[in-house]
Amino acid sequence: MTVNPHPTRENLASAAIKLFLAKGFERTTADEIAEEAGVARRTFFRYFRAKEDAVLPDHDGCLDRVRELLERSADPADPLAALHRAAHLVLGLYSHDPAMAVRRYELMHKVESLREREIMTINRYQRAFAEHLRRISPEDDLLRHDVTAAAIVATHNHVLRQWIRDGAAGDVHARLDEALGTVTAALTAWPPGDERQEDSLVVVVASAGTPMWRIAKQLRAAAKA
Amino acid sequence: MTVNPHPTRENLASAAIKLFLAKGFERTTADEIAEEAGVARRTFFRYFRAKEDAVLPDHDGCLDRVRELLERSADPADPLAALHRAAHLVLGLYSHDPAMAVRRYELMHKVESLREREIMTINRYQRAFAEHLRRISPEDDLLRHDVTAAAIVATHNHVLRQWIRDGAAGDVHARLDEALGTVTAALTAWPPGDERQEDSLVVVVASAGTPMWRIAKQLRAAAKA
Repeated sequence: MTVNPHPTRENLASAAIKLFLAKGFERTTADEIAEEAGVARRTFFRYFRAKEDAVLPDHDGCLDRVRELLERSADPADPLAALHRAAHLVLGLYSHDPAMAVRRYELMHKVESLREREIMTINRYQRAFAEHLRRISPEDDLLRHDVTAAAIVATHNHVLRQWIRDGAAGDVHARLDEALGTVTAALTAWPPGDERQEDSLVVVVASAGTPMWRIAKQLRAAAKA
Repeated sequence: MTVNPHPTRENLASAAIKLFLAKGFERTTADEIAEEAGVARRTFFRYFRAKEDAVLPDHDGCLDRVRELLERSADPADPLAALHRAAHLVLGLYSHDPAMAVRRYELMHKVESLREREIMTINRYQRAFAEHLRRISPEDDLLRHDVTAAAIVATHNHVLRQWIRDGAAGDVHARLDEALGTVTAALTAWPPGDERQEDSLVVVVASAGTPMWRIAKQLRAAAKA
């Protein structure tokens, strides 16, 4: 056994995925992963609580960074901007190593306990997103916050999955920007409770080529004026 | 020990929740639940694979009914109608016994493994919803399907949670109808890919009191004409 004096989380994760794909998740032990990575068994367990954790990216660390980012970004004028940045942060966790992202995805489809870990993690991001919205717009519709958090997480997952299926090539962050733009446009047209009953006349003349979502946005602005 | 010759799932669930709340989830055994319900230990395990399952409503059965409902309802003109009915079906699973819903919610906040089961289950409904949309509108924007499924599930969870927090009184199905109406209005304003680039002039005159979401809907219809 070659001893690696400076093992990193990535060394261990890479060794784990290699063995899981080669001989199966169930039949691979933590000892074998440690040996493959050239570290002692106890070193493995200093990084990971269980075999499953070795495959997933560092969500605990990422969730800390997401929470920090959201706490720093409390602009009530644009509550979604910080969530978009947070979604890019999570996406980067997967996309910085495209080959690893593909192998992890492959493994995820074979091992139910891995999928379960992933689903639990996704839920933690979604809760952090909803909490951010409640913190910066406490007077707003709470249903809207929950749906917005769910929609942004679903958008992130959709973009990541499609990118991986397409071979993990190309700019995944540009894809996420475009998708978030579409989803945000729909959420912008959310009918606000205080305006649904408003008794006003609205006339809009839109110029050629104006996208529908922009007209909807203008209408809301007009109704507020 | 009194032997109950016709135990039902509900008898066992009720006994389980009573003991979990009285002496704690971890310290209650399956044997004790069986004894409380007046059945043999093996009867308990005929109904449930694990202690956790005894607390949760019958999601396996409900998921089967949801899938049947969605398979019967393949109206491409109104892809959301079936999902709304499915959301009501799931809501009924909780709301038909309000007292149980409240105690289950209380327990859920104390026991992490129960919350995890619940999150996993929610994910199964969300996947069934997205699959339904892909099946009946395969040509539509896949991102929209994923976001719609996530939004409907988030709406259901939001309404159920608020109803329980408000003491599980009043018509929870009416609350869900109202919330789904709001969310559907937002999703109706979704900017469709093939219209975003369209080079047409749109003029709308809305009469007094017209809600914004209805104007957005009209605009889309006008753009298609």
